[in-house]
Amino acid sequence: MSSDIPGYRLGDPTLERVVPIDDLERMKKTALFGPDDVAALREARAILAPQVEDILDVWYGFVASQPHLVASFSKDGEPNADYLGAVRQRFGQWILDTTAAEYDQAWLDYQIEVGKRHHRIGKNLTDGVDAAPHIRFVDLIPLVYPIFGTLRGFLEKGDASPERVDAMHHAWLKALLLTITLWTQPYVRPGDF
Amino acid sequence: MSSDIPGYRLGDPTLERVVPIDDLERMKKTALFGPDDVAALREARAILAPQVEDILDVWYGFVASQPHLVASFSKDGEPNADYLGAVRQRFGQWILDTTAAEYDQAWLDYQIEVGKRHHRIGKNLTDGVDAAPHIRFVDLIPLVYPIFGTLRGFLEKGDASPERVDAMHHAWLKALLLTITLWTQPYVRPGDF
Repeated sequence: MSSDIPGYRLGDPTLERVVPIDDLERMKKTALFGPDDVAALREARAILAPQVEDILDVWYGFVASQPHLVASFSKDGEPNADYLGAVRQRFGQWILDTTAAEYDQAWLDYQIEVGKRHHRIGKNLTDGVDAAPHIRFVDLIPLVYPIFGTLRGFLEKGDASPERVDAMHHAWLKALLLTITLWTQPYVRPGDF
Repeated sequence: MSSDIPGYRLGDPTLERVVPIDDLERMKKTALFGPDDVAALREARAILAPQVEDILDVWYGFVASQPHLVASFSKDGEPNADYLGAVRQRFGQWILDTTAAEYDQAWLDYQIEVGKRHHRIGKNLTDGVDAAPHIRFVDLIPLVYPIFGTLRGFLEKGDASPERVDAMHHAWLKALLLTITLWTQPYVRPGDF
């Protein structure tokens, strides 16, 4: 199914390789991200997979409620429904991928590609749309909180113990921090990353 | 007391004003950071203040256990004890300030200043030390996790309910995300922030 999603390129061997795997390994150490987190994320995947559309409804509702965020999908104040829909398909797949990832070079390469799609160097190209030319850096890292905070209720809908929900929720946060570091790579001055 | 800490400049009106307050207000909206979080942080402050040295022991132990992190304080593989000690004083004050901040222009300006002290444009100057000339971008955002995850046990040592501990812990995460966004500002390409 995922290969049918326009613009979805996880595992595409033609993606540019900008960041070496050693940098990701270094980031994992700093974030205390290990095999237990990969396992917790897989556990989360089984709980979240049937709820992907509900999760996206919450996140899209949040973005829609914040004019400065919906502006990223807009031109002259008018949100582009086709663009929102195309990104939504990939965002749903991203939930499944984040909870199933091997956190390897292929995953890393696609995160950099997604980062470019937020930055002026790649914005709008994937979907061929006419919208805001750039998403500001200030809009990215703070968005980790709602994407983290809102997930707990969905994790609690499984029959996992509170301790396992905690483990899944913390693994999710670590994964978000690794992800956003890579998504913001195109914003970083050469040599500073 | 805080004014006695070398290099501590929160509230210094001569700090450069790089980022306007509107950007911080925008970040707060994205992170869902509001008055309830400021209040929860103040509640946390009362619990954390007597434990600052214990918290720093945990964090310094973590940094010391990771060669790529302690390298930021080192020259030719040798950690600089004076530098570590000077930063530790400010880091302790930072716990108190993060839980007492008004999240206003003065707070914002000092976070940018602290960001510069991580980046090659300002590294080592405050303490007049000879150490690694730059902390890599990849080392900053992932560090949010240990600084978040390790705090919960300290928050639980107060007599707050689990619900209040949750509220304090989440407010702390939001504050960390705002903080790290500003600390990484010097790393961002001009015009992209």
